[in-house]
Amino acid sequence: MAKNKTPIIILNYKTYLESTGNNAIQLSKYVEEASNESGVNMAVAPQAVDLYNVIEAVDIPVFSQHMDAITPGGHTGSTLPEAIKQSGAVGSLINHSEQRLTLADIEDVVSKTKDLELSSVLCTNNVKTSMAASLYNPDYIAIEPPELIGTGIPVSKANPEVVENTVSQIHDINRDISVLCGAGITTGEDMKAALDLGAEGVLLASGIIKADNQKDALLDLVSLI
Amino acid sequence: MAKNKTPIIILNYKTYLESTGNNAIQLSKYVEEASNESGVNMAVAPQAVDLYNVIEAVDIPVFSQHMDAITPGGHTGSTLPEAIKQSGAVGSLINHSEQRLTLADIEDVVSKTKDLELSSVLCTNNVKTSMAASLYNPDYIAIEPPELIGTGIPVSKANPEVVENTVSQIHDINRDISVLCGAGITTGEDMKAALDLGAEGVLLASGIIKADNQKDALLDLVSLI
Amino acid sequence: MAKNKTPIIILNYKTYLESTGNNAIQLSKYVEEASNESGVNMAVAPQAVDLYNVIEAVDIPVFSQHMDAITPGGHTGSTLPEAIKQSGAVGSLINHSEQRLTLADIEDVVSKTKDLELSSVLCTNNVKTSMAASLYNPDYIAIEPPELIGTGIPVSKANPEVVENTVSQIHDINRDISVLCGAGITTGEDMKAALDLGAEGVLLASGIIKADNQKDALLDLVSLI
Amino acid sequence: MAKNKTPIIILNYKTYLESTGNNAIQLSKYVEEASNESGVNMAVAPQAVDLYNVIEAVDIPVFSQHMDAITPGGHTGSTLPEAIKQSGAVGSLINHSEQRLTLADIEDVVSKTKDLELSSVLCTNNVKTSMAASLYNPDYIAIEPPELIGTGIPVSKANPEVVENTVSQIHDINRDISVLCGAGITTGEDMKAALDLGAEGVLLASGIIKADNQKDALLDLVSLI
Repeated sequence: MAKNKTPIIILNYKTYLESTGNNAIQLSKYVEEASNESGVNMAVAPQAVDLYNVIEAVDIPVFSQHMDAITPGGHTGSTLPEAIKQSGAVGSLINHSEQRLTLADIEDVVSKTKDLELSSVLCTNNVKTSMAASLYNPDYIAIEPPELIGTGIPVSKANPEVVENTVSQIHDINRDISVLCGAGITTGEDMKAALDLGAEGVLLASGIIKADNQKDALLDLVSLI
Repeated sequence: MAKNKTPIIILNYKTYLESTGNNAIQLSKYVEEASNESGVNMAVAPQAVDLYNVIEAVDIPVFSQHMDAITPGGHTGSTLPEAIKQSGAVGSLINHSEQRLTLADIEDVVSKTKDLELSSVLCTNNVKTSMAASLYNPDYIAIEPPELIGTGIPVSKANPEVVENTVSQIHDINRDISVLCGAGITTGEDMKAALDLGAEGVLLASGIIKADNQKDALLDLVSLI
Repeated sequence: MAKNKTPIIILNYKTYLESTGNNAIQLSKYVEEASNESGVNMAVAPQAVDLYNVIEAVDIPVFSQHMDAITPGGHTGSTLPEAIKQSGAVGSLINHSEQRLTLADIEDVVSKTKDLELSSVLCTNNVKTSMAASLYNPDYIAIEPPELIGTGIPVSKANPEVVENTVSQIHDINRDISVLCGAGITTGEDMKAALDLGAEGVLLASGIIKADNQKDALLDLVSLI
Repeated sequence: MAKNKTPIIILNYKTYLESTGNNAIQLSKYVEEASNESGVNMAVAPQAVDLYNVIEAVDIPVFSQHMDAITPGGHTGSTLPEAIKQSGAVGSLINHSEQRLTLADIEDVVSKTKDLELSSVLCTNNVKTSMAASLYNPDYIAIEPPELIGTGIPVSKANPEVVENTVSQIHDINRDISVLCGAGITTGEDMKAALDLGAEGVLLASGIIKADNQKDALLDLVSLI
């Protein structure tokens, strides 16, 4: 995915019913509309099983939630990077806190995204792991302190230093890596705070997915940019 | 899936390139043709990402390769049973030797298939685990000694007793469970041997997927029934 | 371990500081004293690193908390069954809810305990998995509904049927398997309730380990037998 | 462990019978003798269950093979860092290729070794992961290309660049980290080659443990230093 439009918002669908199957398609249409209305770059990350349908239904970047560190072969039930590429997805989340990889596998999967010309969004939990992660040159690093995920308490408020320090340390290592800010982001205020701290976007989930009105929640999210 | 047509052949696509993306669709059409030409009940189990496309392309039963023991929620990168159901799949492989589950999770997933009205194909490795598995009342038990998977040495020849004993022990416990025979099945002779030992079908993979001519391999498979 | 003395109490030391290192030895002495004073059969399950020291310090049965499904070889950081045997331990917990195994590995480890003449305490979470587990003929099945572990709410009160039904179903399959009752057992009253439901002993942990006075808590536990 | 004596040889006992129980004690005495006779700094890493006995039997540094990323509490069957410390071990291997950790857990365990004043030997598989690992400031980084482990083909011959590059890249980041060279080291020639490439020691296993004469193999190992 070309990084020509920033900031970027990536909505991780996780495995909520509100973002599965037909709901995944409906939500993706809301995201597309909100992106078009606001002019903000928005992407979605549905479950593997929903990738094809979402990609067919909307014209926004679509990411996979995970890829396994495997090559084609006998790996029943795993997620093959080449299959993700063929689906039309533009990239993948890697090492999300709900799907952690070993250090060796992180390198393997990031390297595979480069071979397949996929964007990599490498999730990390603090400044030090973000620095280690940046040595693999992913396209994005999404810093999400696990203790804040799903709480509604935005990392940009609870722990602004972790965002600022991650941005500055990573940019010291490689200026081309974009830092996303995750965990607890829900409102336009949270979003603005994240950008003010130097993040170039956000990775978020339940705050939008579980909202009474998903479309309104999306528009509120970008209202202060 | 109604079990009115037996024997049944389930082709596990694993994560081979020959059964991914467009190849998954092409292979599924071969399976559909072979099923129609032979009158034998054939099903396929593509990767999660390919489920929708395969289900749309052909009119044969389609299984998932795996489902995680999770409920809707925050499980990035996992396979939600409800998402598999919504895709139109008729069931799922469970506990394949390349994706083993804990005992507690096996029960959880088999129970979830019943709630969702999905067929369960519970994979096991020997007579004793097959008996333990049968207590959960899956629709199918697929006995695959792991040491034979991918070898081309059919379990029906290498270890006929394990098939016979599994069939008799499981039917003692619950006559409604169908026993499938896996590992090393490639030819019509292997298929016939499996049925002669009391199996009601086979679960197979590389023998067909990696064949020079997949369609011919499928027709050979059912030539002696 | 000969099952000539019942009921049996097995104290799982887990990885609490109160049951690690020197504290493991002190606690084991309390257990030995309480066993001698009460005449009740008591055993302990320290961490692997503490096994030798505890076995040397006291004259009560000592169990390992876990064994991996491995044979001698290159398995850095794993727990080799043969090493547990050589330590002088009399057996091992298997498949504890904090260390679940796959179905295939459960069979492998129970089978290994028989080869090595070790006692097996196979942990399960409900009636159905207990029945499945009983097909492997372990010496003990410890039924512990995971939602009650560490709560102080005894399974014998919260869910007496699960204990009664486990005992009756397992004894239907194999009368030689002893059923232990775990999860939330702390007091003499809990202990008595467990035995009244047909359990032949208990597996417990934090209720004793975190008690202000471990020795008193142990004596209270056996006060109503 | 003070790093005043270099080079250092760390012998990983893994779970071989030749390095378990009484054999672990005997082998440790050979290592102690070889260390005394040669003046070379030698350490051993037995299984957790053998730590106390080995530490009592010999006067050389003893490492654990693994520590889990846990704090004291309910973690049945895991290896608590505090328990390793109390055993008298001087440190631990971390992230061995046979016991890989997630990136977040690597940071957690290295950090725990610092709190507990234990030496950390962080295992890696190539130059890039070694650089990432070095950001956590372990005492040692042991570079072991997994494809060479147990082969008898020394990394110092098969892939000398990976050793040289790891040493130079890591020392650019932090000169205080010592680089060990693992995988396939067996003979004095292999050892010398590793040191010539800039390694400050070796991590080895089967080449010594499975030798017909372990003591002679140890003496040969240091014969060319």
